[in-house]
Amino acid sequence: MTDTTTTPAEQELVARWQKYIHASPYNRELGVLPHAAQPDWFVLKIDYQDFLVGDPKTGVIHGGVITALLDAACGFSIFMKLPELKPMATLDLRMDYLKPATPGRTIFGGAVCYKLTSELAFVRGAAYHDSPDDPFAMAVGIYMFTSGRPVITEKVGGMQ
Amino acid sequence: MTDTTTTPAEQELVARWQKYIHASPYNRELGVLPHAAQPDWFVLKIDYQDFLVGDPKTGVIHGGVITALLDAACGFSIFMKLPELKPMATLDLRMDYLKPATPGRTIFGGAVCYKLTSELAFVRGAAYHDSPDDPFAMAVGIYMFTSGRPVITEKVGGMQ
Amino acid sequence: MTDTTTTPAEQELVARWQKYIHASPYNRELGVLPHAAQPDWFVLKIDYQDFLVGDPKTGVIHGGVITALLDAACGFSIFMKLPELKPMATLDLRMDYLKPATPGRTIFGGAVCYKLTSELAFVRGAAYHDSPDDPFAMAVGIYMFTSGRPVITEKVGGMQ
Amino acid sequence: MTDTTTTPAEQELVARWQKYIHASPYNRELGVLPHAAQPDWFVLKIDYQDFLVGDPKTGVIHGGVITALLDAACGFSIFMKLPELKPMATLDLRMDYLKPATPGRTIFGGAVCYKLTSELAFVRGAAYHDSPDDPFAMAVGIYMFTSGRPVITEKVGGMQ
Repeated sequence: MTDTTTTPAEQELVARWQKYIHASPYNRELGVLPHAAQPDWFVLKIDYQDFLVGDPKTGVIHGGVITALLDAACGFSIFMKLPELKPMATLDLRMDYLKPATPGRTIFGGAVCYKLTSELAFVRGAAYHDSPDDPFAMAVGIYMFTSGRPVITEKVGGMQ
Repeated sequence: MTDTTTTPAEQELVARWQKYIHASPYNRELGVLPHAAQPDWFVLKIDYQDFLVGDPKTGVIHGGVITALLDAACGFSIFMKLPELKPMATLDLRMDYLKPATPGRTIFGGAVCYKLTSELAFVRGAAYHDSPDDPFAMAVGIYMFTSGRPVITEKVGGMQ
Repeated sequence: MTDTTTTPAEQELVARWQKYIHASPYNRELGVLPHAAQPDWFVLKIDYQDFLVGDPKTGVIHGGVITALLDAACGFSIFMKLPELKPMATLDLRMDYLKPATPGRTIFGGAVCYKLTSELAFVRGAAYHDSPDDPFAMAVGIYMFTSGRPVITEKVGGMQ
Repeated sequence: MTDTTTTPAEQELVARWQKYIHASPYNRELGVLPHAAQPDWFVLKIDYQDFLVGDPKTGVIHGGVITALLDAACGFSIFMKLPELKPMATLDLRMDYLKPATPGRTIFGGAVCYKLTSELAFVRGAAYHDSPDDPFAMAVGIYMFTSGRPVITEKVGGMQ
């Protein structure tokens, strides 16, 4: 599974996604940005910033930032598989921390919804610098479609 | 398991812990504060702030904030069981999201290290508003002691 | 949390549960037996048997047996909280292996459903020899109520 | 990721692995057999047997059997990446149950060790009937190398 460069079509998708990502104040605060959007691999990114650091002696980004990035990527990877947005909530999320993120480097968080039912979405994702084949963290989770109000309510024509 | 009020002894512990918690820029950014410190239940808190919100329509705090809070509480719950600080890293963390946090309310994250070996620490925690018996999120994780440099290097006399 | 001795009332409950447990051929094969049934702690047990061993050099029971025991205990702990049986399925299950089970000893698997909604049950359990306060394995999981046929269809009067 | 047919070379590997798999009495009891062995995808299988059933009304195999199969596949996937066998233990294992296994059909459990350090092995696996691209269960776990005695002590020349 290799990461994709942004084609013009994807740049358009990316431009479209940014307002949805920033509908969440917390994603705005962290500086989460869209990077690429394929049906089977949706990627967000966070540029390195000092206030995101967990350990000031090493400069390594806090694990909670990685989790937030992957949780968001997982959510959007589900949207990529839906004909229209549905409200949903994270049921559970497992994070495996393989090694520290590299201080100073941009963090990419990619995810794919690998199983979708009328009620549930099973997702997995990876956090990396260069390639999802060399991740520093992995995520696995289950999301459930709810009857609440979705975060994003504007109708999005042609999610994919 | 009920939450404890802060006795003078615990207030002293709390005052001591604040500089260790804020050794992490990200914890400072989120506004993580110590709340109570018992050997079997270490509690951090985050007051509600608009920039922590995940869903602007509901005002519910972003799940990534809850994860960061519980990850920190888990780490400190391990310190409560050690005679002296040892460098460690999170191997994995599972978060169960039972219900949304209540908008506007302070979030408490408590944790306990329930199994400790020379190499590993098994932890669990809960995020709640009123009592850990009514949590809105749960955490379970495994941390490993490493040979790296710890986040906190000043010698802490009498961890407990 | 201490384990309970079986009172006459619980012996009756245990006698009632055995046929439900053995409705599953696999539970029969493993030799799963009911041990105690409280609303907040339902306990099954498996006596040590050579064919359950994972490592013949140590005689330690295979981890898959522990998982099957805890999965069953979790399921029944949910039934303890329901007015009547509902079909359900395991969504996910996390097992933490703290130390090996002791060869030769009976294994107890206790569980509690700590959060119940109309759609989901959040459960946790522990596998132990002497006390759930000294577990050798822990389980955390989420079950979902489905529209399929339940394993147990006879009407059970007074589940608790 | 598609499943592989057994070439003569792999048939030889499979013949070699059977005695290691059956070193575990429990794997023998379940009828676990080797199916294919690639460095990045090690596959075990269990043929359908009535005593493995969890729900007698549907004939669906018990989830604990799936877990045992995937736990074993994960362990062997780690051996595929080691120059020589090292003792190890499962730290934790997460199982996602996507849908029921199909009654009557052989179950395949494949796994890959996707990250290896001197102390840890991070693994993931899938249980399926036809292809790992259409799994009915997924596994993610962390194993730790220990100082105990390995299950398999005969020296295995050329693990791969």
